[in-house]
Order: sequence, then C-alpha cells, then structure tokens
Amino acid sequence: MSEHLTLVKVGGKVVEETTSLHDFLARFLKLEGLKVLIHGGGRSATTMASRLGLEAKMVDGRRITDAAMLEIVTMVYGGLVNKNIVATLQSMGANAIGLTGADLNYMQSAKRPVREVDYGFVGDVTHVRTTELNLLIDRGIVPVLAPLTHDCKGQLLNTNADTIAAEAAIALSARYETELVYCFEKPGVLRDAEDDCSLINCLTYHQFKELQAAGAIHTGMIPKLDNSFDAIKRGVSRVRITNIAGLQSGGTTLLSE
Amino acid sequence: MSEHLTLVKVGGKVVEETTSLHDFLARFLKLEGLKVLIHGGGRSATTMASRLGLEAKMVDGRRITDAAMLEIVTMVYGGLVNKNIVATLQSMGANAIGLTGADLNYMQSAKRPVREVDYGFVGDVTHVRTTELNLLIDRGIVPVLAPLTHDCKGQLLNTNADTIAAEAAIALSARYETELVYCFEKPGVLRDAEDDCSLINCLTYHQFKELQAAGAIHTGMIPKLDNSFDAIKRGVSRVRITNIAGLQSGGTTLLSE
Repeated sequence: MSEHLTLVKVGGKVVEETTSLHDFLARFLKLEGLKVLIHGGGRSATTMASRLGLEAKMVDGRRITDAAMLEIVTMVYGGLVNKNIVATLQSMGANAIGLTGADLNYMQSAKRPVREVDYGFVGDVTHVRTTELNLLIDRGIVPVLAPLTHDCKGQLLNTNADTIAAEAAIALSARYETELVYCFEKPGVLRDAEDDCSLINCLTYHQFKELQAAGAIHTGMIPKLDNSFDAIKRGVSRVRITNIAGLQSGGTTLLSE
Repeated sequence: MSEHLTLVKVGGKVVEETTSLHDFLARFLKLEGLKVLIHGGGRSATTMASRLGLEAKMVDGRRITDAAMLEIVTMVYGGLVNKNIVATLQSMGANAIGLTGADLNYMQSAKRPVREVDYGFVGDVTHVRTTELNLLIDRGIVPVLAPLTHDCKGQLLNTNADTIAAEAAIALSARYETELVYCFEKPGVLRDAEDDCSLINCLTYHQFKELQAAGAIHTGMIPKLDNSFDAIKRGVSRVRITNIAGLQSGGTTLLSE
C-alpha cells in the first residue's frame, strides 16, 4: 500500500499573521505521515500594492495580474510569505523547502488566453513534474508551495493556490495515497452560510449536486467543491474542507461515492 | 577523484537587468560540470525601499537591516531576484532551484552582536548543512542561492552574498573539487584600479600580501581577497575573480601557493 500524504492548503489570512501562523503550523506538523503545505498571500499582496501606490484590480473576485502586480506577487508569495513559513517550520523541527512552480520545474502553466477578461500574467496549469518532489517528500522534507508557476519560457505566472493544491495532489496520487485539506475560516461546508453549526460532515458528489439544486450551498463554495470532486475523480483519495480547529480530522469530508 | 563543482557569485547589477542577466546565465550554463549560482540584489532592494518611502541605511558600505529592510530583502532577494533567475535558467534548459538558508535548513547563522554598530537583522554564518544540497547537485540540479540565512529559531537574516558563496564552497569541498568564481564589473584584481589592462592573472597569498604592503591593491578588493584566501585554506581548490567576459577561464586566479 502506498504511503499516506496530506496536502494542506491554507488561506492567506492565517499565514499572514504571526500568531495564527504559529498556531496553524504547530497543528499542521501534528498531522501524521508525509506532508505538503500550499499557501496563499493575497491580502499581503494587496497591502504591498497599496503601499506602492498601486491598486489591486479584481474581476469577479479574481485578481488581474499586470506586470507591476506580477512583480509584487513574486516578491510577496515567493519571498515574504513563503520564506517566513519555511523559517518558522524549521524552528519547529520540520525540514521545509519553499518552492514556486519554476523551482525544480515542478509546475508548468500557460498564460491564460484573453477572452472577455484579460487576467494578465495568470497561468493555467499544464503539467506537474513530481520526480524531485517525490525525492524530497520521501526523505520527510516538507515542500511549501507558493501560488506561482512558470511557462518554461522564463515567465513566472500567478496561479490560484487552491488550483496549485489540487493539481499537486492529483499528480502526487501516482505515488502516494493523498488527502487534500482546504483550511479556511469556516468549519467546513455549511447548510446555512451564516450558521457554523450547520456543518455537513460527509458529502458525496451526488449529495452535493442535490444540495446545489436545492440552493442549499453557499455560492462561493461551489467552485471549490467542483474542483475538489474533480480532484477525487483524478486520483486524490479524500478531500476535506475545514478551519484550523478541525485540521486533524474535522470539517467536511468529500467522498467519491 | 571527486567531481568538479563551480560556484559562481554574481553581483546585483548583472542579475537585476534582463539583458545582462540573460547574457550572464547563458555563459554560466556553458561552464562544464556541476554548478551553483549565488546572487546579490542590493540595488533592487534599495530601489524597492525607496519606492516604499524607506531609506537604505549604510555604515562603511554595509547595509543596516532593520525590520522594514528585512521584509524588503526577503521579498527582493528571496522572491523577485531569485525566482526570476530560476525561471530564466529553466527556460534555458537547466533544472534550477532557488534557496535561502532556511530552505532545507542548509545555512544557519547567528544575529550579529551589537558592538559599535547595530547591523540589525544580519546573520553571521554558523553552520552549513550539505546533505540535501549534495543530493540535488548530484542530480545535475543547479541551486540558486539568495543572500538570506536563518537562525533556526524562525528568524530570517540578511547575509552578504560573497560570504554565502565562500561558506557554501568551503562546505561543499568535502564532496567536490570546488572552484569559486566571483563575477563582478572589473576584469579581476588590478594593479591599477583605473586601468583594466593591469590585470593580475595569478596571485598567491604571499604575492597578495606583498602587493598589499606596497599599496598596489585597491582598498575595496582587500576584504574580498582575504576571504578568498581563507576559502582556499579551508578546502576550496581555486578562487577566480573576473567579469562576465572572463567567466569561462579569465580574470585573476588565486592559488594556495
């Protein structure tokens, strides 16, 4: 049987404040077995843009990455957020390594074609190379993945951290029994977005589509769930959606059927 | 006989402009055998500080790294400069990986004690771990080292890139026959700092000290040479000081005797 590997994607807010970062990382390291961490950093990027007199441009909640913003996310995601997480993990005794998709050429992407919206320097994942990732993970090293990819022609591209997490989990499923955990502010998938006690513990794809049809799932959660079920179809054993408190085994578990 | 490894340290100016970066990296990749690249980025850090309304503070040509400046060098060295070099190397067919000292816990340091000057978040190297560096280098991967270290307690620290290069070369000498190349603006060590034709091709420690006593070596070059001869004493086979044009085999070669 292949070894268990947990990939945790954590939202920006948690990793951008020192106290919650420490709390989160301590809990993350208590997860048994092999681990990969994927982080965001959008709030820090927006703050840095504002300090530099640039305005973060968003369309439907998605960032427009012009050349100036690409410079900022390269600095903030690849440098500031990523390296502080790595240094903190090292202080906790975990041998971590920070990576963008260009490092080890592990995640390749293509600049998103311009249709109704020009997202700028945003990359859609085209290929994940796991050769060296496997080598590092097998030695107990914890890869810390920043939401940046590259096009193999020298261009770094901004890629959504949820997508990086899903694509990495899918590719690593060839070697490991993978569990993908999305850690965010809410305790999981809720029947009522305003009521944290309305947590759905387990959800199959069939149930998800029924609840969606009944309008019982928060709109913002739908793409996350679609992506998660896609990851399950493509080899990921289990996906969980949870907050920090539920990191070990709580939240909503998505099941293939 | 152990395998040949060339470590090239390149100054900020070369890697901070796209055209010279491409030219330099193409020449760097033509070096035979295993390779490591170490980069600076001081000019970009100073520019970014100025854009953020902060003034770069220097004492005797050394940067004072307060908390705000540490944030900037973490972004600029660890993110912007490092990841652009890595993506460019990948586009040229080299499998590169960008590292700070915190990544893989490969270079540990201690915050410099406050004496006459408080340098702030500056780290003096205390230990170099080569276990995973060896693993990567043996697979033909090119580590790209940013001038940042960590104290194992979660603190990133700013460390001079020349020092990173020398300490990495010394530690890697346990496994490889190492050559350390400092690539900067001048063609090498000059008898007359104003005359590029006054290049000294070979220099032993004895000759260096004679020339120094005679006042024939430019003051700014003296610490670089002291550090270089120290590296030779501690296991590095050869040190060269050159400009881009001399990268393959030109410049001044320092010899143990």
